[in-house]
Amino acid sequence: MRVIFVGFGNLGRGLARALLQPNNPLQRQGTEVKVVAVADDRGGVVDEKGLELGKVLETAEREGTVASLGRPGLSAVEVIRETEAEVVLELTPTNIRTGEPGLTHIREAMKLKRHVVTSNKGPLVVAFRELSELARRQGVQFRYSATVGGAIPVLTLAKRLSLGDRILAIRGVLNGTTNYILTRMEREGLPQDIVLREAQELGIAEKDPTLDLEGVDTACKLVILANATLGLDATLQDVRVLGISRITPEALKLAKEAGYTIKLVGSADSKGLSVRPSLVPLDHPLAVSGTLNAVCFELEYGREVTITGFGAGPRETSSALLSDLVEVSQNI
Amino acid sequence: MRVIFVGFGNLGRGLARALLQPNNPLQRQGTEVKVVAVADDRGGVVDEKGLELGKVLETAEREGTVASLGRPGLSAVEVIRETEAEVVLELTPTNIRTGEPGLTHIREAMKLKRHVVTSNKGPLVVAFRELSELARRQGVQFRYSATVGGAIPVLTLAKRLSLGDRILAIRGVLNGTTNYILTRMEREGLPQDIVLREAQELGIAEKDPTLDLEGVDTACKLVILANATLGLDATLQDVRVLGISRITPEALKLAKEAGYTIKLVGSADSKGLSVRPSLVPLDHPLAVSGTLNAVCFELEYGREVTITGFGAGPRETSSALLSDLVEVSQNI
Repeated sequence: MRVIFVGFGNLGRGLARALLQPNNPLQRQGTEVKVVAVADDRGGVVDEKGLELGKVLETAEREGTVASLGRPGLSAVEVIRETEAEVVLELTPTNIRTGEPGLTHIREAMKLKRHVVTSNKGPLVVAFRELSELARRQGVQFRYSATVGGAIPVLTLAKRLSLGDRILAIRGVLNGTTNYILTRMEREGLPQDIVLREAQELGIAEKDPTLDLEGVDTACKLVILANATLGLDATLQDVRVLGISRITPEALKLAKEAGYTIKLVGSADSKGLSVRPSLVPLDHPLAVSGTLNAVCFELEYGREVTITGFGAGPRETSSALLSDLVEVSQNI
Repeated sequence: MRVIFVGFGNLGRGLARALLQPNNPLQRQGTEVKVVAVADDRGGVVDEKGLELGKVLETAEREGTVASLGRPGLSAVEVIRETEAEVVLELTPTNIRTGEPGLTHIREAMKLKRHVVTSNKGPLVVAFRELSELARRQGVQFRYSATVGGAIPVLTLAKRLSLGDRILAIRGVLNGTTNYILTRMEREGLPQDIVLREAQELGIAEKDPTLDLEGVDTACKLVILANATLGLDATLQDVRVLGISRITPEALKLAKEAGYTIKLVGSADSKGLSVRPSLVPLDHPLAVSGTLNAVCFELEYGREVTITGFGAGPRETSSALLSDLVEVSQNI
């Protein structure tokens, strides 16, 4: 299976390292992966016979780009157009307003009848329906497990639940950073700014944590999840969003005394899409601690099924991307 | 899709009711299900043009058997042999020592190249490898989601996790009855016998709760789960089993003070298979309350993924059986 990497930052390199490991999931399935091109924002390197991935990885880590190995200034779109491959891996950074540059990369790849595997929420938040329909028309596979829930196969689970049951509502704790902050505030009675600073030092929160704290990251994941599993055509504008900034340790204490915890919950149900701090019973499976994520599906027959796990982190994202690649290879 | 019901007790009738509902999952997929035979332990009724399922259900509920509609004394094996069908639903009661009568029914169905969907743990605990290989040799589908975790798609999840990751260990709270008892003991400090009696009155525990309390039911589910997902060839004899009879409210109280709860956990890892009361951190997703079940997969890349939901009950089992039927119909 010939694969093009578009974007070669932490995620791309993490995946490359996983592919270099002997007995990785694709090898176990008997699929030989040949990386025929790697493009980043400064250039691209192409070899239709298959790149030496170890060397590419080393160069990228040393120089911050693969450009010196190939043609500096070569754009990702040119790489996609000029290289024969079955799969395009779109791993560029997310832009939730325009979806770019991922949106253009994915459109281009699909037009050329390449399967697409992505970790990029932007294009899906901006143009879910367009891309799903383009994939269907072109007869290509389009997989994006890594965009929601990381190593937790939320989308696979939702698909199975929809087979023999009906999903009535989705509730998700979809952002590890805010969940970590709320957990520490609850356990230690500390104010939000102190916990946030600590989370930033630990690398759990980003330098600019606005998108996490204000619920926008949760809203993005909710949009993708709801579109993919409930057949909606929602965008970010359809979500009422309230972040955690007004949650105090006192509120968490009061909630706990009444048998609840407060979580930032993304909900999709007959009333629409929303993200807001919500009371969750302490003994409910959604009441996960620390950086854990959780998604609860409310069902017609099976009552509730909840899945929890780690939603972020390069290893977790690699796990999702590898699973998608294996599924693509099985269906080719 | 022509289907034979073998066994028409609570589960079979529950599923029949679900199939009679308009807009059920099979109809939504565009699959017409024609029930061509129903066999119970007193007789069977066959109509290759399709039975009137409503009438069969009514008779079974009134008379406790479908025999009067067809031929009293007609055996399930005869029904399987003499009726043309694509799918045999094996829903007879479980016998964990011999696997019978389900084992014979499943063998017979597969020899005739019929796909098999079952809720019966017995045959799988006794002869997992034999039946899996028979299914493979005969080119038929063999699905048994309803045997582990009820409405929780544990097996589908495990399959997906194995695609892009590697399952290193499985830990499961697989029995709702014992979990309910431990939860009540912990919350109210009540002794086990009092909680058990109450659970029996509520229909959560059976009149003879031995198999649940002694961990045998958990062990059966663990055997099926481990065989199906780790490629083992285990039987009940391979599981070290210890039930919850010696767990006291005092032990639960001490555990709680240290930040733990006690759950009856089935484990499969490099050390083998075991079922025993285990300390679980209160904030771990396995620490589910009441009649909930939970299964935690420990992974090479994705750390841990845990799924929780309701493992028992006729609606939950119907959900699993319907999902399996839909998947069979999609692959026919």
